[in-house]
Amino acid sequence: MSKLRLAITMSLDGYVAGADQSEPNPLGVGGMELHQWFFPLKAFREMHGESDGETDASSPVVEERRANIGATIMGRNMFGPVRGPWPDDSWRGWWGEDPPYHHPVFVLTHHARQPLEMKGGTTFHFVSDGIESALGQARDAARGRDIWLAGGASVVNQYLTAGFVNEIDISIAPVILSSGARLFEGLERGALKLEQVRAIDAPGVTHIKYNVR
Amino acid sequence: MSKLRLAITMSLDGYVAGADQSEPNPLGVGGMELHQWFFPLKAFREMHGESDGETDASSPVVEERRANIGATIMGRNMFGPVRGPWPDDSWRGWWGEDPPYHHPVFVLTHHARQPLEMKGGTTFHFVSDGIESALGQARDAARGRDIWLAGGASVVNQYLTAGFVNEIDISIAPVILSSGARLFEGLERGALKLEQVRAIDAPGVTHIKYNVR
Repeated sequence: MSKLRLAITMSLDGYVAGADQSEPNPLGVGGMELHQWFFPLKAFREMHGESDGETDASSPVVEERRANIGATIMGRNMFGPVRGPWPDDSWRGWWGEDPPYHHPVFVLTHHARQPLEMKGGTTFHFVSDGIESALGQARDAARGRDIWLAGGASVVNQYLTAGFVNEIDISIAPVILSSGARLFEGLERGALKLEQVRAIDAPGVTHIKYNVR
Repeated sequence: MSKLRLAITMSLDGYVAGADQSEPNPLGVGGMELHQWFFPLKAFREMHGESDGETDASSPVVEERRANIGATIMGRNMFGPVRGPWPDDSWRGWWGEDPPYHHPVFVLTHHARQPLEMKGGTTFHFVSDGIESALGQARDAARGRDIWLAGGASVVNQYLTAGFVNEIDISIAPVILSSGARLFEGLERGALKLEQVRAIDAPGVTHIKYNVR
């Protein structure tokens, strides 16, 4: 059975994006600081067509997170800054014409839209009938491989609350954001039974993986 | 110069105690789950007069946290369940007649009280003129050694906001508490510049240490 795997970076005080997300500031105020550990890596540079970059203790973690993933689920705010009904089809994601997914991506939204086929194997499918439907479609598309639950906080918290997440791999950044999109908000106490699988000390970040029992 | 060192256990969703702290439930609802990694350890058992217990990757962390500490600061709710003016001197802490500190402990409170000398070298001093005064008194008492900032969240957040904390060593427990006393609440974004020193993968917990720049 394919797993639903959450992999996300969180500030030490629990936020996965800063306040006031917008087109010039996709991760919200201060949100870029969360990913300082990731930007210098060869794994990140390659995703964006560069051949240079560093290798450190985070590199195998990034590789592990990408391995055996056949589909991605994300919330609409992670896909773009447009709110409300789509005015047209001009917004095509933050990632240019060849997004770094290379597999089907299911975008949760309240507003239907035709699938958007990009270069390199990424197709964005817009799902307006709920998280269970998105998970079912992602599972079909993944053909036995796992599904990456990418963010943002609202969609992730919905999947956590529903008990659909099998694995949580969190990168804790040495940053205090103080406001923004908070992970684990609204869950009931004891809703998740977590078992720590491993923790990795890497430059400027700690990666902790949990199984959800 | 002696350092002010925060060492505390936090749930994955940011709480250091559960909701509704009371005499039968000192750590609040679910709060005991935070410390499951600590209870089986020889270091914990010895603190409570037992000679058995386990040794694991957490043991050197506990030892490191205790080393070179000459005084402790805590909030009044960590000292006991009494709220408002002290009705009398009958409450003598949660820890019995020989508390596991063995050095001066400064308890922040709005209500003055005479010092309370216990067995084994622990004296509780009640400080009612603010966090800066408590820090000054603790520094004098520590005689060049460091000061442990022990909790709870309210006092810790005040010291963090004031910029007095030099080091943060957080144990992240695989627990979702959902409510209670939240660490880092009320801080401004960027108020703390953190540098990750090390992370340790231990059974059922991850210990991350930061320097505050």
